[in-house]
Parts: sequence; structure tokens; C-alpha cells
Amino acid sequence: MKKVGILGGGQLGRMLLQASANYPVEIHILENDTHCPAAPYCRNFIKGDITNYEDVFQFGKNLDAITIEIEQVNTEALEALEKIGVHVYPKPSILTIIKNKINQKQFYAAHQIPTAPFIITETAAQIKNHPQLLPGVHKLALGGYDGRGVRIIQSDVDIETGFNEPSVFEKMVDIKNEIAQIIAIHPNGNYTLYPPVDMVFNSSLNLLSYQLCPASLPENVLQQIETIATKLTRALDSPGIFALELFVNKDDEVLVNEIAPRVHNSGHHTIEASYSSQFDMLLRIMLNYPLGNTTNRSASALINLVGEPGFTGTPIYRGIEKVLEMNNVFVHIYGKTITKPGRKMGHITVIENDIQTLKQKVELIKQTLLVQA
Amino acid sequence: MKKVGILGGGQLGRMLLQASANYPVEIHILENDTHCPAAPYCRNFIKGDITNYEDVFQFGKNLDAITIEIEQVNTEALEALEKIGVHVYPKPSILTIIKNKINQKQFYAAHQIPTAPFIITETAAQIKNHPQLLPGVHKLALGGYDGRGVRIIQSDVDIETGFNEPSVFEKMVDIKNEIAQIIAIHPNGNYTLYPPVDMVFNSSLNLLSYQLCPASLPENVLQQIETIATKLTRALDSPGIFALELFVNKDDEVLVNEIAPRVHNSGHHTIEASYSSQFDMLLRIMLNYPLGNTTNRSASALINLVGEPGFTGTPIYRGIEKVLEMNNVFVHIYGKTITKPGRKMGHITVIENDIQTLKQKVELIKQTLLVQA
Repeated sequence: MKKVGILGGGQLGRMLLQASANYPVEIHILENDTHCPAAPYCRNFIKGDITNYEDVFQFGKNLDAITIEIEQVNTEALEALEKIGVHVYPKPSILTIIKNKINQKQFYAAHQIPTAPFIITETAAQIKNHPQLLPGVHKLALGGYDGRGVRIIQSDVDIETGFNEPSVFEKMVDIKNEIAQIIAIHPNGNYTLYPPVDMVFNSSLNLLSYQLCPASLPENVLQQIETIATKLTRALDSPGIFALELFVNKDDEVLVNEIAPRVHNSGHHTIEASYSSQFDMLLRIMLNYPLGNTTNRSASALINLVGEPGFTGTPIYRGIEKVLEMNNVFVHIYGKTITKPGRKMGHITVIENDIQTLKQKVELIKQTLLVQA
Repeated sequence: MKKVGILGGGQLGRMLLQASANYPVEIHILENDTHCPAAPYCRNFIKGDITNYEDVFQFGKNLDAITIEIEQVNTEALEALEKIGVHVYPKPSILTIIKNKINQKQFYAAHQIPTAPFIITETAAQIKNHPQLLPGVHKLALGGYDGRGVRIIQSDVDIETGFNEPSVFEKMVDIKNEIAQIIAIHPNGNYTLYPPVDMVFNSSLNLLSYQLCPASLPENVLQQIETIATKLTRALDSPGIFALELFVNKDDEVLVNEIAPRVHNSGHHTIEASYSSQFDMLLRIMLNYPLGNTTNRSASALINLVGEPGFTGTPIYRGIEKVLEMNNVFVHIYGKTITKPGRKMGHITVIENDIQTLKQKVELIKQTLLVQA
């Protein structure tokens, strides 16, 4: 039985374990937090630091393959593991590019992959020389995650709020749609695309409201997405699952915002909506099985279940019974021991081919199920 | 978080764990074999004997709920746990009836549930006084499992091959169809039926070839099944999942063959074919959530993957890549460390609304995927 390791034991690890129980594979997890979502579902759980060279190397050296749940891991150890013959998904060299926003932007430029115009900065003051990029977004090269390490610079007066560390400053895109595109790349070079996902935002709160799949997009936008995905697949030259975040601007031009080189929140609906989920697909890739079928079994919506403002502590899932009474609604609770405002505590997938009914169910669920403490 | 225990760590436990990762629940498993299919997916794995009073009682006493994976457990310990407030699915009293084939048959008779005519025997010779039941089937009251403890008595000359222990002797049914019916019963008394499953036999080998859902049955047969399921639900008066094995005879009369008071092989297709699988449903019942939707998302077939004759040892899944290349085919390997001839090593579900295509895929898969060593 092949031995596969995962760096990180959050909800992605938990769902990967869930999918892995269909295959002859032994899963190992490295994670410091013994109360993490994946721990209860893994006998081969090793407590350790995924950013520490020794911990990662010792964990991985007797495995056949290793993958990540989060980008912030020790890539040097992964490179050393690759050298002794452990298969790493994605390739550590790709991780090194993606972890650093400067490298990531330069990678797009080098491969003619459309992305918002940008400059590289060491200090915020350097932005002053590039008024054509205003309004823009200042992003720390390293360590940004889930909104941290990002500043909006509307005009000259905001520049002093920028970063005085290596960063990227890019022109703000006049966004019409935010689209997620999951790509699965096999070790043999074959690849397949899941149907694109529409990230629907609440414009007043500027927060992701829900995701809709398939995204309803004009043919020329779909073609641009496909072209970008194909170019990226060649440029990445690495097996694994990749989640692209794309902007469609007011002129219907598609631009890459960023890549996550792993299973991703924007692909959770594939568990019920696709024949082969993103988790199933990653296992197929790591076990050297053929790629799965990315066709939608049904249209779907995905709602993230985040901790309500004002509640910290042992979670209570208010309204879960009401939601479970609704037909064709799938609840995924991640088993986190503590809820905090805005923390991802679970997600809900709704399967429904009638888009109006789908949207109505989404609104009802958002009002009904609340994570409190 | 509620604590739920499972007695037994086979594939049913493994799939229940898989489904449980969607809910806020802590699963515990009691099982003697530390290499069992469920063990790698359960942190709270207790090595112990599910037929031993002390082991079961100690395992269960701090749990909120407990269920079984197999009938051969210590029911006295479950009764004691029930008395101290642990919720047991199914009720131990039902388990006591079902575990013993004499009690089971008398239970059907007492509740006017149609079943083949029978007598209770202490010795094989007693069959001689009941020539009207020939040809018939002699079944040991206790300990029969997967074909063990069953003798076919075609005529007088076979009678001496019967059992000289407490047994049931029943008239052989002139079978037209074998049907499986899964019932889900909520603690509040609500119940729901999954679509019936047609168990398709290979008539030359007399072995289950595959299962088809929904079974194609005339309206009056479907009505009899529903009536029987409703009567049984009232008679059982116990929350849980129940799998009925039914015979349809040449006169289109439906007879109960036996009940399994648990998730069952005949319901594995529900993982992909139903909105709420039998495993999801059992969790809903144990967590006191509303019952799920038993509607089929699609027609389906289920093929058991059993060890090939002539091979014992570490399993090799020959042809698995070819099967994984086929669209809409879901492979479930149970992770058993040793294959033996006839041992259940996994199953495959095919989703396909066109029944002819479905049957063609089944035949292809049966020829393609072989468990050897």
C-alpha cells in the first residue's frame, strides 16, 4: 500500500482523508495542533512543525508521496525529499514561486499569462513614481494569507500605509466577475479542467457570499479561461491540483489574480457536484491512477460557514437541523474545537439544476445556519 | 461534540467514519483486529472483543450513542448500556430477536409479516414429519453468517445432512426476484424507505452478480414491499437502519427472508446514488438530526469486489486503472491487508440512467478488475 503524507491537518486534510478511504493508500499527517480537523481521522498522525526542515524531512523520508494543505511549509525539506525519490505534489520549485508574490507575478509575466500591471517595491514610497497604477493593491511578497498582508491604495494619500518590505504593487482591476478555475495535472502531463466557478460577492460588505457552479460566462470569456489554464499547465509543469483565482474585468478580459497549488475552498462543491471531486482527483494523481471525470453531475452552490461576529469558544451550530431538513443540501462541519469571528467552520453545498431555486436555497441557508458559541 | 461508538471495525465502520467527517461528532471504535479497515481512520480506536460483556460495557459507558457493524455482539452489555442512558441503535431487544433465526421467524409470524412457512427443529429428523415443507432450507438459529449454518434439503434423503441443534426449517421459495429494501427509522418514529434494490444473480453459479437500483418491479409488488416495510417499522419500534432481504415468488407475492439491523452491503450504492447515503442517514439518526432524502440522484449498479479463487495474501487490484478510466464509476477499496478467495475486498458503484449502458459497464468491470495476491 502506498504511503502518502499531508503537510497540515486542517479541513483540507480532513476531506482528503475522507476521499482516501476509497483507495488502497495509507495516509500520514504532520501537524502541530493535535486538535486539528484531520487528527481524529488519521492513525498516522505526527505532531510536528510543517515549517521546520527536520520535522518535514523526517516525516517524509519513508513516504512514497507527499502533498500540502497550505503553502507555508518548509520547501527546502520538500526539495531534499524530492532528491531522495519522494514524489512531491506540487513540485517544490513551483511552491517556491507561488509562496512569494513577487516570484508569482514574474512567473506570469515570463509566460505571457495575463495579469494586472504591477511593480515590485521595497518601500511604499516607490509607489509614488507609478501614478498610472493607482488605485492599486499593495501585497507583501511573503506571509500574506486570507486577507492579511494586503493594503488598498486608493490614491497618493494612502501610499504611506503601504509596506516597507519586499512587495508587489498592482493596478486595481475593475472587476466584473471573480472566477475560480480548478486544474488537475497528472504526472504523465495530461490535465483536465473543472467547470469554472462564479464567486458571488456581497457588494455592500465586500465579502464572498457564495459560489455558483458552473459560472454563467460568455463564450469568449470561457475561451480565455481555457487558454490561460492550458498555458499555466505547461508553465507549471508539475502534477497536482491547482486553483486559479481569475478576474474578469469590465471589458471581458480575463486576468490571473493568484494560484493556489493545492485543493482549495473554491472546489469543495466538487464532492457532491462532480463525478470526481478535487480530493478524489488529487489521490488519483498521487496514486498514478487515471484522471477522473470533471463533468458536473448537477449545478451547485457552495456557502462557507464562518464563525459569527461576537462569538469565541466551543461552537454551536444554530439552525443545523433546519438546514438538514432541506432537500439536496449537504452539510460539512470541520470539527474545529473553537469558533472565532470569521473562522471557516464548515461549508454547505446545495445541488439543484434550477438556478433560481438554488439561489433561494442559498439565501435561506445563510439566514438559518449560524455558528455561535 | 457527541461521542458515538461503533462495535466492529470492518468496511461498514470505515464507510461510517467517512460519512461522519461531515458532522460534529467524535467516533470511537471497538475491534480486536488492529489491521481492520476502519482502524487507520479512527483516532479513538479501542482494541477489544465485541462479544465480551466487560469490553463492550467499558467501551460504551462514556459514550452518548452506540451502534453495531455486525449482529454478533454482546447484547447483554448493550442492554446494560441502554439502562445507564446510552442510546443504542438498534435497540438491544431487536438485536436479540434478529440474532436468533427462531426468534426472527416467530417475530414475523407474531406481526403478520409474510415469510416462507416454517417449523422450529431441535433435530434434523423432525423435518420428516413435515413433507409439505420440502424442498426446504435448514438454518441454524445461532451463528449463521454469509452462507454458513445453512443447508438445502431437497428431499427425504437429504434430511440427515440437517442440523441437530435449534434451527428453523422453512419451505424453499420459488424465487422470481431477490430484493433488498433499506429502511431508516428516526428516534421520533418517522421513517423513510430507499428505492428497492434488485439483487441480480448469476443463475449458473448461484452467486450474487450485481445489484441494480431502482429495482424494476410491478406496482402491486412495490405496494406489498411498502406495506411490509411499514408493518416492520411499527413492529421493530427501534431507531436505526434496517436492511430487509425480500423474496418475490413466481406468483408475485413478497416474503421477508431476513432483516439486518444495520447498514448493509445492499445499500452501498446510496453513497453516490442517493442524496443521503445509508451511512449519512445512520449518523443523522444517532445525532438526532432530521432524516435525509432517500430519492435516487441516478440509477445505479453495485458490484462486490471479492478475492479471486486461488489467491491468498497481500491484495493486488488488477485492472483498477482501467476501471478508473471509465466515466461515472466509483471504486471503494476497503484496505484489507489480506485477500482470500471470496472475501469482500471492496465494491464498485456505477451511476448511469440508461439501464442498458449500466449493464454493459457492469459486465466490463467484472471482467476487468480482479483481486489477486
